[in-house]
Amino acid sequence: MTSAAAVRREPLPLTAVTIDDEFWAPRRELIRTRTLRHQEGQLRRPGQQFDALSLSWRPGDPDEPHIFWESDVAKWIEAASYCLATTDDPELDRAVDEAIELLAGAQQDDGYLNVYFTVVKPGERFTDLRDAHELYCAGHLIEAGVAHFEATGKTRLLDVVRRYADLIDTVFGADGPRAGGYCGHQEIELALVKLYRVTGERRYLDLGRRFIDWRGEQPYSFEAELRRRGTPGYFGTRLPRKPDDLRRFREYNQSHQPAADQAEAVGHSVRAMYMYSAMTDLAGEYGDDRLLQAVRRLWADVTDKKLYITGGLGSDPRIEGFGPAYDLPDAHGYAETCAAIGLVQWARRMSDLTGHGHYVDVLERALYNGVLSGASADGTRYFYGNPLASHGTVTRQEWFDCACCPPNLARLLSELGRYVYAQGPGEAVVNLYVAGTARFTFAGGEVTLRQDTAYPREGRLAITVTHAGDGVDFALAVRIPGWSRRPTVTVNGEPVDRPGLRDGYCTLSRRWRTGDVVEIDLGMEIRRTWAHPAVAATAGKVALERGPIVFCLEGVDHDCAVHSLVLARDVPVHAVPDERTGVVTLSADATTDATVDAGTDGSLYGDRPPARRGVTMTAVPYFSWANRGLSDMTVWIRE
Amino acid sequence: MTSAAAVRREPLPLTAVTIDDEFWAPRRELIRTRTLRHQEGQLRRPGQQFDALSLSWRPGDPDEPHIFWESDVAKWIEAASYCLATTDDPELDRAVDEAIELLAGAQQDDGYLNVYFTVVKPGERFTDLRDAHELYCAGHLIEAGVAHFEATGKTRLLDVVRRYADLIDTVFGADGPRAGGYCGHQEIELALVKLYRVTGERRYLDLGRRFIDWRGEQPYSFEAELRRRGTPGYFGTRLPRKPDDLRRFREYNQSHQPAADQAEAVGHSVRAMYMYSAMTDLAGEYGDDRLLQAVRRLWADVTDKKLYITGGLGSDPRIEGFGPAYDLPDAHGYAETCAAIGLVQWARRMSDLTGHGHYVDVLERALYNGVLSGASADGTRYFYGNPLASHGTVTRQEWFDCACCPPNLARLLSELGRYVYAQGPGEAVVNLYVAGTARFTFAGGEVTLRQDTAYPREGRLAITVTHAGDGVDFALAVRIPGWSRRPTVTVNGEPVDRPGLRDGYCTLSRRWRTGDVVEIDLGMEIRRTWAHPAVAATAGKVALERGPIVFCLEGVDHDCAVHSLVLARDVPVHAVPDERTGVVTLSADATTDATVDAGTDGSLYGDRPPARRGVTMTAVPYFSWANRGLSDMTVWIRE
Repeated sequence: MTSAAAVRREPLPLTAVTIDDEFWAPRRELIRTRTLRHQEGQLRRPGQQFDALSLSWRPGDPDEPHIFWESDVAKWIEAASYCLATTDDPELDRAVDEAIELLAGAQQDDGYLNVYFTVVKPGERFTDLRDAHELYCAGHLIEAGVAHFEATGKTRLLDVVRRYADLIDTVFGADGPRAGGYCGHQEIELALVKLYRVTGERRYLDLGRRFIDWRGEQPYSFEAELRRRGTPGYFGTRLPRKPDDLRRFREYNQSHQPAADQAEAVGHSVRAMYMYSAMTDLAGEYGDDRLLQAVRRLWADVTDKKLYITGGLGSDPRIEGFGPAYDLPDAHGYAETCAAIGLVQWARRMSDLTGHGHYVDVLERALYNGVLSGASADGTRYFYGNPLASHGTVTRQEWFDCACCPPNLARLLSELGRYVYAQGPGEAVVNLYVAGTARFTFAGGEVTLRQDTAYPREGRLAITVTHAGDGVDFALAVRIPGWSRRPTVTVNGEPVDRPGLRDGYCTLSRRWRTGDVVEIDLGMEIRRTWAHPAVAATAGKVALERGPIVFCLEGVDHDCAVHSLVLARDVPVHAVPDERTGVVTLSADATTDATVDAGTDGSLYGDRPPARRGVTMTAVPYFSWANRGLSDMTVWIRE
Repeated sequence: MTSAAAVRREPLPLTAVTIDDEFWAPRRELIRTRTLRHQEGQLRRPGQQFDALSLSWRPGDPDEPHIFWESDVAKWIEAASYCLATTDDPELDRAVDEAIELLAGAQQDDGYLNVYFTVVKPGERFTDLRDAHELYCAGHLIEAGVAHFEATGKTRLLDVVRRYADLIDTVFGADGPRAGGYCGHQEIELALVKLYRVTGERRYLDLGRRFIDWRGEQPYSFEAELRRRGTPGYFGTRLPRKPDDLRRFREYNQSHQPAADQAEAVGHSVRAMYMYSAMTDLAGEYGDDRLLQAVRRLWADVTDKKLYITGGLGSDPRIEGFGPAYDLPDAHGYAETCAAIGLVQWARRMSDLTGHGHYVDVLERALYNGVLSGASADGTRYFYGNPLASHGTVTRQEWFDCACCPPNLARLLSELGRYVYAQGPGEAVVNLYVAGTARFTFAGGEVTLRQDTAYPREGRLAITVTHAGDGVDFALAVRIPGWSRRPTVTVNGEPVDRPGLRDGYCTLSRRWRTGDVVEIDLGMEIRRTWAHPAVAATAGKVALERGPIVFCLEGVDHDCAVHSLVLARDVPVHAVPDERTGVVTLSADATTDATVDAGTDGSLYGDRPPARRGVTMTAVPYFSWANRGLSDMTVWIRE
């Protein structure tokens, strides 16, 4: 097994990547020109996030500042910063600077920066770590500060969050008043790794490490906290009395056992993804094999037993989190947008750390399905949960009281360049198929690659060396997805026999010169996919996939409920490209048993067996569902 | 349409009914000899319910008294009282008297009786009506007081609860300090009707009526309460900001609109059942047609669109309540035992008020399935939720922090006699098929009927007039269930041609003499049942029923997951009586697609289609599931 530091890749900086892809470029433009503006409008509403930063709220006033609000502002700044890294947008730049000044103005003399515990519950700082999301908000502020500095070179927000991080380091230092404590919603841990990387200050890394290491230590921090305080947590949390309830109480935020000992993904999925991401970072930074083995175990548990086919995570809406193994309900699951985003973030770290492409297969599954479904086609409405079936009652919302998902989606797509490529020692890595360019720097010189593709509409891609000076020696590693059955590879038109697939990559090592072209055809067949027989929700059902796209049936395309549709196993399914939009839909002959007079006379239960009639079935990309009015939907189709 | 007071039946008093039925008598004996003892043991644990009534808890002590605890004690007393009404049990009698003395000792000088607001939050009486269950507990105390008086003639508890009810009447009087307020968990409304009926004090009835009438009045009581208090409710409840969230906040406890205007069952199912029961009582007491029309509408909405085939209610675990119409997930539903019990209570009231037997069809569905499944075969473990499928992770628990279900089940089965018969003007009604006797009193004299049956093992019953003096004129109305396809009826061996089925009853009017025998054969065929095609969870699936019993498949009877089993529509299903236990199971040839090498190599998703093999399928009564160790289960079987 690879040891922790054996392979190490890093994303390319955003400024080294351009994206002019037919699939992604319009979506990214939409994020910048509409989504971020729309979200800014939400944050600027009277009495909401921006207003709250003036610290003018007083007890009895309406619109009590919410415990999450800094994180909303921070993720919006982070997303906007990624846009500013590659696009000139003075208006957005000004709006971001204004938000940063509001944050700076809300910072207290000692560096503390949290509205709720400044105006609503002054004097109660760091006393409700389990529920109140205080360090979670700090983590997002830190990520925003790092992103804004890297994107713009401005240090204003970075300085603010460093002062706050310094205060936190004092409070949660080994001898600090809150030593042994950690946040009920992991986030600051991975943020501190970023802060360390951009500042070089090792104590930020060590603080992140402490937050991870203290987790699961006994006596359990949150239980001691509740006893110490003697009052319920922000969400009315009381210490459970029954052992089973206490176990769930601990598992909810993954503090049930030391992080390095964990083997099963439990509890709240977003918390888990952020923690596993931090653990992966720390495994690399410290060369810690125990942490590496832990995240490998957790990865296997998540992807072999708890992953929706869309890349969604979290089957239990009550905890917004993981259910038991193989428990993957469709309409009544959860699959929060933020959890799929967290999986994308974690998968990139796993891939960078280990050099394995199968992590990117999962990343891609989540990105093109469970993440993208989180926003409407016009970029201004959002899903919090992304169920795999709907009975026609679900639609995207303009905003949420807990508005974590919308800006999270914006920041991921704005940061997409970091996911397309990676660079290792003497190695240029193509992880995703996205048209555009990437600039790599090797000991032997700079190289620019241009990627051309109509993916995921088609499976062909061409990677052209557009600038390599007099030629540069490096290995070009192009990911070959696990679903690609017979990929073909040519270099300058010459077929590569047995393309040397290793760890999920076709790796071509040579002296690359300007004009060299690698052409790859992954194929783009329609695939029938079945789930493991232990999954009850999918028994007797099949899913349709094509490339990275998972399809679904929507009621708006049918004159019967989609759960009544039956697709015989031997019936061919055809791809139908839409000439105008470029979107590929699927079509097949099917049957329905939703006859009007089935059941009985409209009563709920009866003894009249349902009968079947023929119908044409249309499947559309899952990410595109719920853009044509209220409609029922299903990913899994009865066979 | 029948007006509110047109038909009116009443249950027979418990003392007029004996039960020596092969199905029910052992279960009722188990309740008295084991379940109630076991529950008493739970209540007597140190620091728990009984201890708390000493009012010795002080801030900082462990085992903070729980807001529900009086209701646990009260329901246990109520259940025990019903046992004492028909069975001599001095030990139980003493234990009940002791519990009553504890309650009496905890009562304050002004009549107030609630431990939490006496020792934990003194000075905060009636300030958190939404969350703190204060009037809910009062309601259960009142029910217990009425039950204990009716069963034993002792007035000790009745006096206690009357004093408390008098205080509540003052506080919530039209001019009282909390006028316009009502409880976040309905219960006291139906209890006040009972208190009125036993005391004749009309102001109790009027108070119950006010609690119902105020519900849904604007400004909304719970929103005003939260604003007034300025702190979150017991469960951390805050006023939602978004309109959708505010709607759900109101619907959760059915205070979103005036009760008489309600047409859709929404929110928490137990709260709904208790409220609809009270509305039905009030419709009868006041002859209120608007309330009658409301409960008729709500009944139709519940039973046509939101009822599990087991009689369970509540498809959304997040609110322990109703989902949208036809949204009836199996493994991820809820179907709280208390909700099925509440449905039984409501159905009896609807039937008594309207004289229709189809309400009792639903009552019977709930009783034999979703209620009975709530307790283990040995009577000492309980389900809170009763899902229609399980992936093998669900088992009954010994007790709950919120222990509403166990004593609720005990009190329903102890009170069974009240559900078997009803008496109308000149009319003896047989609602359920339970061997035993019943004594009716008519103007023309007393009549005793004896019912003999092996139901639900067999479909035959004989009703013999065992005491009718010189003969008494009355109508004998025997319910004929909707599922009975070709019922036959004889009187003294003579077939009754076209048995005059009206409103779900075979009504035989004559002068009945001692020795007269009515014999009825309902049939007991195995039935395949399909759900309405709008129900997604049951699409392509069938359920098996026989008489009132809904069957399920359990993993323990199969060598494959039950969700992998497929029953062809034309394959016969056989009844297999167990000679020893009398339990009838079902058997059929089926197939399974849970082949070990299905899917792929153990990965979650793959392209290898599942294959099928033959297997013998065994179905057992749903109520009996989860008595043979952890096992997966499903009611709905793939076709």
